[in-house]
Amino acid sequence: MLGDRLLVGVSTDEFNKKKNKKSVNSFEERCEILSSCQYVDGTFPETDWEQKRIDITKYNINIFTMGDDWVGEFDFLADICQVMYLPRTEGISTTFLKNNIATNFSYSIENSFHEKAIEKVIANY
Amino acid sequence: MLGDRLLVGVSTDEFNKKKNKKSVNSFEERCEILSSCQYVDGTFPETDWEQKRIDITKYNINIFTMGDDWVGEFDFLADICQVMYLPRTEGISTTFLKNNIATNFSYSIENSFHEKAIEKVIANY
Repeated sequence: MLGDRLLVGVSTDEFNKKKNKKSVNSFEERCEILSSCQYVDGTFPETDWEQKRIDITKYNINIFTMGDDWVGEFDFLADICQVMYLPRTEGISTTFLKNNIATNFSYSIENSFHEKAIEKVIANY
Repeated sequence: MLGDRLLVGVSTDEFNKKKNKKSVNSFEERCEILSSCQYVDGTFPETDWEQKRIDITKYNINIFTMGDDWVGEFDFLADICQVMYLPRTEGISTTFLKNNIATNFSYSIENSFHEKAIEKVIANY
């Protein structure tokens, strides 16, 4: 057991835009999904890169955790809390899931794109 | 409050195949996701169309619910439990989400497909 309370920082849609990222679900939806998880006690918005130190104090955080793809990047917080990098869950990858959906579900979209692309090429040939 | 316990029937991957459906997540993953939801008390596998009557007895179900896109289709169970059709959650659509991912994430896939399709057309022209 790492702690008795789990708070999750959730990037706002505006912050994602700054990071050149776009979530499938809106900020409000992502917070609701996380809060529905029985292992999550609460969420708070992340709007910039610099707020972690403030949040740790504000929410009285003892252990700060990130995935081990970030190893070392948050060691600078170790003066105010414990910093832990957790292993990614084996076999679980958002990129894989999105790719899977994109490949399987966009079949009809691709086909109509193909047809249009082909029509265009023939028209211009 | 509809009841004090929520059990969710989850179609197995084999049953989905029979229905010409394919889930993004495996049966085991879907069960784990649902069980992590604080509103879900348990899941059980669905392997065929005919098992609902048996499950209702087996799990001591008082209220059977389905989305209101199925209105009337399960009225035949009303002799052993209450049958309720719940309104779909407004603004939440798996089809929309999949479409969204397929459109946004498959951009690079589509582009490479386009190029190949166009090359092929030019080669055969």
